[in-house]
Amino acid sequence: MPAEYTTMQDHTEGVRTGVAIVGLGGAVATTAVAGVEQLKLGTIGTAGLPLAHRTDLMPYDSMVFGGWDLDSSNLAKAAHLHRVLEPVQIEAVAEPLQRIEPWPAVVDPAYCRNATGENVVAAGPLRERIAHIRADLQRFRREHELDSVVVVNLASTEAWPDLTAPVLADIDAFEEGLDRDEPMITPGMIYTYAAVIEGCPFVNFTPSLGPDVPALLSLAEREGVPVAGKDGKTGQTMIKTVLAPAFRSRALTVDGWYSTNILGNRDGQILDNPSSLASKLDTKGSVLDSILGYGVEDHIVRIDYYRPRGDAKEAWDNIDLVGFMGQRMQLKVDFLCRDSILAAPLVLELVRLVAEARRRGEGGAQEQLGYFFKKPLTRDGRLPEHALHAQERALLDWLDGDR
Amino acid sequence: MPAEYTTMQDHTEGVRTGVAIVGLGGAVATTAVAGVEQLKLGTIGTAGLPLAHRTDLMPYDSMVFGGWDLDSSNLAKAAHLHRVLEPVQIEAVAEPLQRIEPWPAVVDPAYCRNATGENVVAAGPLRERIAHIRADLQRFRREHELDSVVVVNLASTEAWPDLTAPVLADIDAFEEGLDRDEPMITPGMIYTYAAVIEGCPFVNFTPSLGPDVPALLSLAEREGVPVAGKDGKTGQTMIKTVLAPAFRSRALTVDGWYSTNILGNRDGQILDNPSSLASKLDTKGSVLDSILGYGVEDHIVRIDYYRPRGDAKEAWDNIDLVGFMGQRMQLKVDFLCRDSILAAPLVLELVRLVAEARRRGEGGAQEQLGYFFKKPLTRDGRLPEHALHAQERALLDWLDGDR
Amino acid sequence: MPAEYTTMQDHTEGVRTGVAIVGLGGAVATTAVAGVEQLKLGTIGTAGLPLAHRTDLMPYDSMVFGGWDLDSSNLAKAAHLHRVLEPVQIEAVAEPLQRIEPWPAVVDPAYCRNATGENVVAAGPLRERIAHIRADLQRFRREHELDSVVVVNLASTEAWPDLTAPVLADIDAFEEGLDRDEPMITPGMIYTYAAVIEGCPFVNFTPSLGPDVPALLSLAEREGVPVAGKDGKTGQTMIKTVLAPAFRSRALTVDGWYSTNILGNRDGQILDNPSSLASKLDTKGSVLDSILGYGVEDHIVRIDYYRPRGDAKEAWDNIDLVGFMGQRMQLKVDFLCRDSILAAPLVLELVRLVAEARRRGEGGAQEQLGYFFKKPLTRDGRLPEHALHAQERALLDWLDGDR
Amino acid sequence: MPAEYTTMQDHTEGVRTGVAIVGLGGAVATTAVAGVEQLKLGTIGTAGLPLAHRTDLMPYDSMVFGGWDLDSSNLAKAAHLHRVLEPVQIEAVAEPLQRIEPWPAVVDPAYCRNATGENVVAAGPLRERIAHIRADLQRFRREHELDSVVVVNLASTEAWPDLTAPVLADIDAFEEGLDRDEPMITPGMIYTYAAVIEGCPFVNFTPSLGPDVPALLSLAEREGVPVAGKDGKTGQTMIKTVLAPAFRSRALTVDGWYSTNILGNRDGQILDNPSSLASKLDTKGSVLDSILGYGVEDHIVRIDYYRPRGDAKEAWDNIDLVGFMGQRMQLKVDFLCRDSILAAPLVLELVRLVAEARRRGEGGAQEQLGYFFKKPLTRDGRLPEHALHAQERALLDWLDGDR
Repeated sequence: MPAEYTTMQDHTEGVRTGVAIVGLGGAVATTAVAGVEQLKLGTIGTAGLPLAHRTDLMPYDSMVFGGWDLDSSNLAKAAHLHRVLEPVQIEAVAEPLQRIEPWPAVVDPAYCRNATGENVVAAGPLRERIAHIRADLQRFRREHELDSVVVVNLASTEAWPDLTAPVLADIDAFEEGLDRDEPMITPGMIYTYAAVIEGCPFVNFTPSLGPDVPALLSLAEREGVPVAGKDGKTGQTMIKTVLAPAFRSRALTVDGWYSTNILGNRDGQILDNPSSLASKLDTKGSVLDSILGYGVEDHIVRIDYYRPRGDAKEAWDNIDLVGFMGQRMQLKVDFLCRDSILAAPLVLELVRLVAEARRRGEGGAQEQLGYFFKKPLTRDGRLPEHALHAQERALLDWLDGDR
Repeated sequence: MPAEYTTMQDHTEGVRTGVAIVGLGGAVATTAVAGVEQLKLGTIGTAGLPLAHRTDLMPYDSMVFGGWDLDSSNLAKAAHLHRVLEPVQIEAVAEPLQRIEPWPAVVDPAYCRNATGENVVAAGPLRERIAHIRADLQRFRREHELDSVVVVNLASTEAWPDLTAPVLADIDAFEEGLDRDEPMITPGMIYTYAAVIEGCPFVNFTPSLGPDVPALLSLAEREGVPVAGKDGKTGQTMIKTVLAPAFRSRALTVDGWYSTNILGNRDGQILDNPSSLASKLDTKGSVLDSILGYGVEDHIVRIDYYRPRGDAKEAWDNIDLVGFMGQRMQLKVDFLCRDSILAAPLVLELVRLVAEARRRGEGGAQEQLGYFFKKPLTRDGRLPEHALHAQERALLDWLDGDR
Repeated sequence: MPAEYTTMQDHTEGVRTGVAIVGLGGAVATTAVAGVEQLKLGTIGTAGLPLAHRTDLMPYDSMVFGGWDLDSSNLAKAAHLHRVLEPVQIEAVAEPLQRIEPWPAVVDPAYCRNATGENVVAAGPLRERIAHIRADLQRFRREHELDSVVVVNLASTEAWPDLTAPVLADIDAFEEGLDRDEPMITPGMIYTYAAVIEGCPFVNFTPSLGPDVPALLSLAEREGVPVAGKDGKTGQTMIKTVLAPAFRSRALTVDGWYSTNILGNRDGQILDNPSSLASKLDTKGSVLDSILGYGVEDHIVRIDYYRPRGDAKEAWDNIDLVGFMGQRMQLKVDFLCRDSILAAPLVLELVRLVAEARRRGEGGAQEQLGYFFKKPLTRDGRLPEHALHAQERALLDWLDGDR
Repeated sequence: MPAEYTTMQDHTEGVRTGVAIVGLGGAVATTAVAGVEQLKLGTIGTAGLPLAHRTDLMPYDSMVFGGWDLDSSNLAKAAHLHRVLEPVQIEAVAEPLQRIEPWPAVVDPAYCRNATGENVVAAGPLRERIAHIRADLQRFRREHELDSVVVVNLASTEAWPDLTAPVLADIDAFEEGLDRDEPMITPGMIYTYAAVIEGCPFVNFTPSLGPDVPALLSLAEREGVPVAGKDGKTGQTMIKTVLAPAFRSRALTVDGWYSTNILGNRDGQILDNPSSLASKLDTKGSVLDSILGYGVEDHIVRIDYYRPRGDAKEAWDNIDLVGFMGQRMQLKVDFLCRDSILAAPLVLELVRLVAEARRRGEGGAQEQLGYFFKKPLTRDGRLPEHALHAQERALLDWLDGDR
């Protein structure tokens, strides 16, 4: 069994890191916050936390949580609603969770139809919205006497604008776009821009656009602020990037790969919206061909909202393989997983890692964090590595300074 | 799609390697031989052959096949019987297959009850049996003007004797054991001994004992003859060594792993014999704990003979995982695979690789070939690496001289 | 094992029944024809034929096949193309199959976009098309000296017109519609009309419209011609109508049922067309609620074209159940089935059964044949019975005269 | 959704039925008792109760529970231990559950090794043990002012003695056996004997021997006491008796059926004992051939104790089918079920049904209750019906007096 979480306390030494989450009231965020509170109490172990043994990274219990949400309910109430954790698990940390209430969020119904709520910043010019977010971050830092702040996007998936729009191509065009309230600029970009200007590392755990837009990527590089993304690799795609390298290794030709997902949480409901779904499917699609080195014509990925499953996602895959002498085989995988349970600990590790990158003075795209993402950010136009074991190797090499 | 097998012809240049197979009439062996014949004709591609692109290894078409079997039927007849390949695939290479007839085999009913046949060497003193095998190898080399011979064990799984028997502990005790016809010495050891003395690299693709006995391992080292084993890693265990490293990487605790196999070929029938089954289960069992770094108390592996499936094995796995905050998940894998189709190309690669080790003058246990085995031979008492991607890395490093 | 097909020969006694199939070159039709030819030869048993033991029905070998198809290839060539049967199985009956060549078909691209071919009747007024079909039936009967002819629709799924169109509501409106070439009248209706007027029983094995349109149902009743349909119940839906009654019986509440199908034959390709797909999904959807007696809000049915599977359809179902004290359970079914192998014998039985109904003088909707269909025709506006065992009971009662 | 449990209250009218359970502290029994208490409170619906709508049977809330167990813990404590119900579900009915404490049980380590406990009747002559049980039943009836008492065996599976032993063949031999403390007489028989003599209907929900021994069956007939059994049909076998009739109906030949079960409750632990397992497998085995009408040579049933699953049993089935023209198909079923959740409501229905049989004056084997059992008791040596839908029909006919 993995070791318990005991030895990290002595690393805190007064360093306090703020974690400002876009979508703070959501299932992943509330699970992450409840988890950190339970780690402080010593009531849970470190299962699910890949880097729990790395005492050279900031300890989990130095994190102070805040952030934005369309719903102003405190996190205890929000956590109960999501039914990710058992009531008794929430009750054990109810006091600290109740103290956290989301700040009003910047939203744009043009990019996320289904996401509505009462706790929103009144629509205004883009520059005003940015000022609003920056003021939130400054106040957060000041009130909690934080040494630094990391921003994490966990909000519902947004639709994508035209990716070839000139306004997204470089930072000057983007600045002009902000001045004239260009409709191609999405909330995800606004949050990224505000965070980078405030010197806060930014993690995009969603399929929405943000630091991966050329304009913002170059801004992050210029400002020396680490950015990471995108779309957390938790369930089916994670398994896909584990199996596909093995098929390649054994020279088993993938003749077809059919993936279907059924999920019943808010994430699933959003994806019933075709344009949000398109964003999601895009990040899932290219992984396979990239690993195998050839195009799989019959690679189908389905996501269906299916209420009875709640947060407990089910991913069913069928893979058609061709082996020696053209003989056919099939492999089927049924993953009865828990979306937020898989995602929350990865979010916590990403916070620790971008904080470390910031400490090392390494700004721009954090390519070594590809291990966590379906569509990893890269530098210099490199194609991303998708095989999980190779991504893990790259991450550990970076941690150990062998970069 | 993987490249076709076209560029290798020019490497042959008259070098001819004999492949002497124990169990030549079996499903794996006949598939391997038919496959090489089809590669010569260019009627199949290289699917299933992991090292097809390595033109620095001997070409497949320089292999000349021979070997022993309890059944003297020629390989065309034997291949039809196993129903691994479609009749039309066998017919396409019927002529070369018909020309190959197995030599009488050395057997011992004490170690493999179910394996019986008419084509056997009359039981006699162990030294006589060894002389018989050596004479076969010498004749094979001479008649086919072979530059070298590799011996591969593909025979039915034998029961294990007492592994702590002194006769198996060192080569001097073993030699004395041969002199007094010690019952602890199995056919698998006899073939290994004969091959090593003849200077033939030996590959043990079965769970039976052979080069992994201390006495024979030290003999191989002394004689500078490469030996590799044991128990080919083809289906369920291969997948297990792909998934388990990912669970470890993501810190998902494996709370239980239930594996069941149903198979209907001769291999399955043999395993209905409890003592042969014990040999098989042993090689399957230790893999998981070794990769995870902790003991999985509820790791159950079942193998059942189930006639309707024929050579088309089915392996069903259920894995119970514990993630963040103690939440439980399940993953199920159903692999509808083809035992011989997975095994045959690995056998061909192993022949090429031990031939390469021989060329390089590297005798004894070939630790870098762990990629192919459920229970890899190691040197100096090292614990074997089981994670498939790490084994692949070690193999490629060796091939590229970075050892 | 079920009895062999031996005792039926003596029932033939010169009675010859024509079977005119719409879609004669398709996978189901060619399998049915090849099967009858093999039954004649005694080279196959009666597996898959539910009523093989009913010697009171017409024998399979009294059937004479003909019909229409967009492709004029003879049935041996067509059968090879579909890859449902092994080449050797087709070769065994190649001679009779080669002798059968489809007649030019009546088509309408407005209702089945993907179905195109060279062997079509030049578009003309609806009355002309009907005359063409009737002439085909008369010639078929005459040339083969048939005692009677049954027409079976096995053509690709057509889109549905507006079902509330007045022209479909009664036979007089329909006749007028024919006169003015009403676009709401589909090829499936044209074939039904022509067959009924010719006195030929009509079986609609597809989801297309035909005898289930009120106008044509009343025509069949008036003319005393048996009609049956619709949409053969072969794979996933068949299993659904087996499991759902058991859940109801045990009072296990179905909280959700997710069904996905992957299939790679021409049928699957057609269903990539959204309007054909809509027809198909409609017939699949209502079954569950009808059996359970309450509405399952989360009943999702997906059909995806997935080339690697060919005719070997795969249907995966996940069912969420709620049992005693509100506790949840799941049941998953993976059916690796063969579409045409399941359908062809049901088609043969339907031919025998509508011929029997004709013999008994029972015209109109054959409600007792619901056993074979996803959306059974009923009389007098009754809701159909969907539970397979209840349908079987009704069928056997009718056969035994207990109706 | 099924109707709520509301209308039954008015049937109680003072009639009180005792339910004396062998194995009262077990998972099934505690679930049944907690369920009845929740039904009284109206906090659960009637999911899982097949006959909830039959108001002609005694109401659930007229049941008064008592019984024997090796563990004297009260039922609230026992229910918590089994983890079948959530703590909050048990707490809601803690008060009535705490009031029930099991009576000391009659055990015999020779027949159930793993079942040990402190709450046992000191071993003594068989006649004394019977007297002990009878005294318990009399006291139970008296103290609770019960109108009648039903005895239900839910104890751990016992090994079987030699079924051909003369002492089991008729009641006279059995009586003599009791006199001389014949070791072939098991605890299951002792409880049956005592119950019948006391005029209490007896339900054997386990695979152990009891009313199915000829001696005791004839005793029950002579005394006019209803007896029912055996081995509750809850999960995998229930599904098997639903699917197999459909395969038979469609003439799909079952070429092999591989069933494996993993379960982690006390029931599973007991079955790690080979002789208890043998009893269990026997009741599972014959079902299939009986339904299909031919022998399935490759019918394999495995049961494995697998701790991580707890009471949440998983049953995985693979079925090999042969269809038209000898073409092969496969169907796989994975049932993630809850053993006690499925069993408890069936036990409650059986209590109501044997009470009804008693009221009607119908003693001996209750053949119409086969619906509930893996190995149904029959009369006059008839072979049992196993198809679930036919069993349901027989049960409903009996209820409606059409017997």
